[in-house]
Amino acid sequence: MSTFELVRAKAEAAHKAAAKLAVTPAGIKNKALLAMAEALLAKADYIIEANNKDMQAAKENGMRESMQDRLRLTPERIAGMAEGLQQVAALPDPVGNVIGGQTLANGLKITKVRVPLGVIGIIYEARPNVTADAIGLCLKSGNAVVLKGGSEAMQSNLAVAGVLTEAAEAAGIPQGAIQFIDTTDRATVTALIKMNEFVDVVIPRGGAGLIKAVVQNATVPVIETGSGVCHTYVDAAADCDMARKIAFNAKVQRPSVCNAMETMLVHKDVAGKFMPQMLDEYFKAGVQIFGCPETQKFDERVQPATDEDWATEYGDLRLSVKIVADIDEALAHIAKYSTKHSECIVTEDYNAARKFQDCVDAAAVYVNASTRFTDGFEFGMGAEIGISTQKLHARGPMALPELTSYKYLITGSGQIRG
Amino acid sequence: MSTFELVRAKAEAAHKAAAKLAVTPAGIKNKALLAMAEALLAKADYIIEANNKDMQAAKENGMRESMQDRLRLTPERIAGMAEGLQQVAALPDPVGNVIGGQTLANGLKITKVRVPLGVIGIIYEARPNVTADAIGLCLKSGNAVVLKGGSEAMQSNLAVAGVLTEAAEAAGIPQGAIQFIDTTDRATVTALIKMNEFVDVVIPRGGAGLIKAVVQNATVPVIETGSGVCHTYVDAAADCDMARKIAFNAKVQRPSVCNAMETMLVHKDVAGKFMPQMLDEYFKAGVQIFGCPETQKFDERVQPATDEDWATEYGDLRLSVKIVADIDEALAHIAKYSTKHSECIVTEDYNAARKFQDCVDAAAVYVNASTRFTDGFEFGMGAEIGISTQKLHARGPMALPELTSYKYLITGSGQIRG
Repeated sequence: MSTFELVRAKAEAAHKAAAKLAVTPAGIKNKALLAMAEALLAKADYIIEANNKDMQAAKENGMRESMQDRLRLTPERIAGMAEGLQQVAALPDPVGNVIGGQTLANGLKITKVRVPLGVIGIIYEARPNVTADAIGLCLKSGNAVVLKGGSEAMQSNLAVAGVLTEAAEAAGIPQGAIQFIDTTDRATVTALIKMNEFVDVVIPRGGAGLIKAVVQNATVPVIETGSGVCHTYVDAAADCDMARKIAFNAKVQRPSVCNAMETMLVHKDVAGKFMPQMLDEYFKAGVQIFGCPETQKFDERVQPATDEDWATEYGDLRLSVKIVADIDEALAHIAKYSTKHSECIVTEDYNAARKFQDCVDAAAVYVNASTRFTDGFEFGMGAEIGISTQKLHARGPMALPELTSYKYLITGSGQIRG
Repeated sequence: MSTFELVRAKAEAAHKAAAKLAVTPAGIKNKALLAMAEALLAKADYIIEANNKDMQAAKENGMRESMQDRLRLTPERIAGMAEGLQQVAALPDPVGNVIGGQTLANGLKITKVRVPLGVIGIIYEARPNVTADAIGLCLKSGNAVVLKGGSEAMQSNLAVAGVLTEAAEAAGIPQGAIQFIDTTDRATVTALIKMNEFVDVVIPRGGAGLIKAVVQNATVPVIETGSGVCHTYVDAAADCDMARKIAFNAKVQRPSVCNAMETMLVHKDVAGKFMPQMLDEYFKAGVQIFGCPETQKFDERVQPATDEDWATEYGDLRLSVKIVADIDEALAHIAKYSTKHSECIVTEDYNAARKFQDCVDAAAVYVNASTRFTDGFEFGMGAEIGISTQKLHARGPMALPELTSYKYLITGSGQIRG
């Protein structure tokens, strides 16, 4: 069987299962999610054994230590995956949720009701916990799922997907609803993202390279996720203590995630008061600073920023810093370099806050809070499948309702159009 | 300037205008829409003169009479376009509409608010009224628009777009918000659908060929519209008189539109009672029938249906007819051939109605009413930009809210993540 035929067969099987899963009641889905969580715990040894193979290959291939850490599964991490499934089971089922409706003058009754998207393709890298998270969220929202994980995590993903599939089907999830592509051939990605006949949406989760390749080549609708060049703008009217706390948190608390700050913009009128202590705090925390010439004047440890720096998602303890003449320069900089994820202004000025929130085009626009809050759990939405940085369909954290479409149900008594 | 550079320049200008248009208040947008309507009426002669050039070329090129009719502009049709703009002015502005929100435990206040998509690319064929409709809907929803019309209507579209742009800008719409691609080079389409930097979504309006080409080649997100292989299923428990009225209306009232019926499915137990009179009514109305062998037994005028017929959107007075053994065969047929637009069951059986609405995967699923009602105006949504047949973002009629995205506005008092 060719790679294309292999992917097609899996996608078609998912499509067939999706029709049944769409009408599977929440009770069965929840029972299945709990059984899947139990199965993960019961078979933790088996999963860790599979993970050991990936870990050994990773070491032999000289994988970076931070990447190895992402790949590693421990009993605690498996327990975390199980807990995630239990949390998804506890969330309300979005399917069947009535989100609108009316009775027309001619007596037709219209109900707008949430339905699953159908088949969701997930293309992801490295972390094996995505396998469990994605399966849980897709099943709960009534969607079949086709998973294509990274080759580094193949054995771990296969084990997790296998355990979950067996438990899900035993609990009444339609056979075929979980499809795992068990080949490392890159052509499987190309096939999956062009499988319009059977796949309704593709969500890439991973680095900028993966996401760009999917967007450039997919014919199936794509939801872009997770690319975050996030800014914090310290306004002239900022409370400097608050600004330092927010800017420190946004950069340092967890620099590897997409809602961490990559560039700090500082109004020139507040720079003298704000900057020295701020830079000191960053350097003490091991942050490397790349600054504009004005920033460099504050501290000799500041390295010069290049044009490329402003557009870079570092994902580590590096930070670009620019001093701006006014809020308009900050807005223009953000409009040019933002990936439309999360942006923040720190200010006590009502009009500056209002202008910033009006004018910044991003999924989440903050006044006086760390960008680190852009997250499904923090927003009270429950587990998320990713954070959309595009404007179509869903923007920002995507949880269960964001994995649905809707349809109009119309009931009449013989109405015809005149 | 190359074709790519030309399209890029227009898309970039639209992108710049979009940032201003996003914060242009409804009052200015509405004033502009009314001024645009007046300008159309005031310059009707100029527009008709331009249209005459297209009409003359169409005649010389031997364009089909029905296509010529779609292309033709008359004072009445221009008045209709003006009325459409006035109606859009009267609709509520979706921008700024608060669609969710909450206060988190840590005191962060989150507001989910509608924002424009940004820049919408419209690629369309033939009818010049689309130019006015699309401009009106995009501007009202705060979006800049890049229009690429068909070459047959170039002079008409240029005139309409020119009149509207002048009136819009005079009334305060940001310069550049309306972009019309005034070259017939097909490469402009290719450039527009790959302009991810400046274009947020592309909506193709036209035949299946155009839509397929856009979906296959776009890297910009696409909303598929308007392809409609719609079915009416006459159930065993149908009221035959009602079924005949609905099926006749769905096929005959306006066969050229996407919500007209293309295939009628009839339960075998009701065929004897239902079919003879139904076929007679169709033949009297000039409908050609392509039927399964069982259907052919009812009337010698029924021609044999091919596999291709079941998948064809005729768009005229042709109809495919199949007799099915039960509702499951009807559902399977619909699942195989439906374009997920509008589907109908005629029945008095509660369980059949419920099953049909649960199981059919389409934008609009009817019980006992003509599929012809799937339409933004009929649904009470106001003017529509098209009917989405995909599941991402918007499904079914797309009016003003469907031309928006949203963003989360978060206000805090110094919250940082622990």
